[in-house]
Amino acid sequence: MKLPEYIKDFEVWENDFRYYYPVTVRFSETDAFGHLNNTVPFVYFEHARIQFFKECGLMAYWMDKRGETIPVTADLHCDYLKQVFFDEPLQIGIKVSEIGRSSVEIHYAIKNEDGEVCVTGRGRIVQVSKETGKSVSWDMQSVESLKKGASVCLR
Amino acid sequence: MKLPEYIKDFEVWENDFRYYYPVTVRFSETDAFGHLNNTVPFVYFEHARIQFFKECGLMAYWMDKRGETIPVTADLHCDYLKQVFFDEPLQIGIKVSEIGRSSVEIHYAIKNEDGEVCVTGRGRIVQVSKETGKSVSWDMQSVESLKKGASVCLR
Amino acid sequence: MKLPEYIKDFEVWENDFRYYYPVTVRFSETDAFGHLNNTVPFVYFEHARIQFFKECGLMAYWMDKRGETIPVTADLHCDYLKQVFFDEPLQIGIKVSEIGRSSVEIHYAIKNEDGEVCVTGRGRIVQVSKETGKSVSWDMQSVESLKKGASVCLR
Amino acid sequence: MKLPEYIKDFEVWENDFRYYYPVTVRFSETDAFGHLNNTVPFVYFEHARIQFFKECGLMAYWMDKRGETIPVTADLHCDYLKQVFFDEPLQIGIKVSEIGRSSVEIHYAIKNEDGEVCVTGRGRIVQVSKETGKSVSWDMQSVESLKKGASVCLR
Repeated sequence: MKLPEYIKDFEVWENDFRYYYPVTVRFSETDAFGHLNNTVPFVYFEHARIQFFKECGLMAYWMDKRGETIPVTADLHCDYLKQVFFDEPLQIGIKVSEIGRSSVEIHYAIKNEDGEVCVTGRGRIVQVSKETGKSVSWDMQSVESLKKGASVCLR
Repeated sequence: MKLPEYIKDFEVWENDFRYYYPVTVRFSETDAFGHLNNTVPFVYFEHARIQFFKECGLMAYWMDKRGETIPVTADLHCDYLKQVFFDEPLQIGIKVSEIGRSSVEIHYAIKNEDGEVCVTGRGRIVQVSKETGKSVSWDMQSVESLKKGASVCLR
Repeated sequence: MKLPEYIKDFEVWENDFRYYYPVTVRFSETDAFGHLNNTVPFVYFEHARIQFFKECGLMAYWMDKRGETIPVTADLHCDYLKQVFFDEPLQIGIKVSEIGRSSVEIHYAIKNEDGEVCVTGRGRIVQVSKETGKSVSWDMQSVESLKKGASVCLR
Repeated sequence: MKLPEYIKDFEVWENDFRYYYPVTVRFSETDAFGHLNNTVPFVYFEHARIQFFKECGLMAYWMDKRGETIPVTADLHCDYLKQVFFDEPLQIGIKVSEIGRSSVEIHYAIKNEDGEVCVTGRGRIVQVSKETGKSVSWDMQSVESLKKGASVCLR
């Protein structure tokens, strides 16, 4: 198997996840070909990412009407390794692989009940100003929070 | 066929729609049983309703950050008469069947390419205050706008 | 509060649910008005209904390529009592309120963390032939399975 | 602006699209941050891709119960250049950038009403056997069909 460019060593990469969030495939998430529709892993990625941001304390600030910034998605990649079907219990792994000035690089791994990685992914989130739409640097507290989800090399 | 309670005479009811909005069934809207998933007609209802509210001039006010009210859904009913499949071009009919003090009763009919009604529906929308969540009466202009979409008996 | 026609006594009705399935509101399920989009409770209803059908043993038959029938939705009603927001942990209650020859009437109650009912609903599911689309009677085993989820008066 | 790796020269790349499919942003596709949710461009990509496959004649074969293959998504990338809001009329551009033995590389560009590219993307689709899940080579006719959507360099 050719690895996606964001994975150097699959085993190392896979073992470096510490945060997992469970989801079960809903019937409305399947399509007429009988498996999980290709658009749904991005819904799972967002779900896990936001649960992680919630645990970091970042989400409360972004959801606050008086808060001055929100996160926006800069890019997203997804690689489908194995088909997923209705009702499969999945674990959505998430880790921070790089913290930029105002952005954060996040990796994803979706595992099935047998622990097989069915989907991998990555994406960059940028913190922007609600007013101007321009990027806004992380403060020290945010960086510390994001480091909690960081892969070993970052900690 | 037993008629839903909100339809007295099917032919009269069907011919009373004047606003139609087109949609085509997307592949991601089908499910593993091969047809349109039952949750999707509500997406189509909302789409048509909001297009109608846009034409009425109400939507611009509700989307405005300085606006004081938003519409909320009080209830929704949907009757599935005929299965719908991938790629069918549909027309979503909409009409106002009753204008209350702060609410509006809306009827829906989804027709396929042959003009057959595949789905019928109804629902009540209430205008509420963003601050208090309490219902807020329509002003005269809103009532006049809503009447544009009204069924014959209301006009 | 005016009760939906399918609820005679709210307290009796509410206490009659025995099956609950948990869901947490995803960010992608909110809309620009900041709350749960009105189309999403139907996704939750389906999720809970299908979990229940799975426990009944009916779902495995319907998902089997060699099975001769599938369930189709005949109608759905939903009443929105209380707004629901991002990240709320919900319990989706489900009960069988009537078993017909080839159909089943199902009631739904969505409760928030404080145990308040935010959404109520009902709908009829019909078992149909994959070949002809015509309704197919429940066999004895299916009826017994469906009775497990039945409200007290049915048992 | 740093270009995604799949775009060498933005202007050349942008002018090389010949197939466009219109969509309008639905209210249910927005989220509580007020803009198009990041998961929705993938729904638009699939919609445009499948419209294209339909015009190619490939979709009819894949949807046919007697057909022996279906398309599966191998990977998907999306870059978000500009925020998109409720009700924006969009054009989803699609082109074939490479035809493999059993796969096809597809590029996407989402333009707003002013012709600005808001979202770019790419992804690989593989034709697989329904029975074995293994990849199945394109026949000559399929290759000719796919070439219709090909970028200039491929034709």
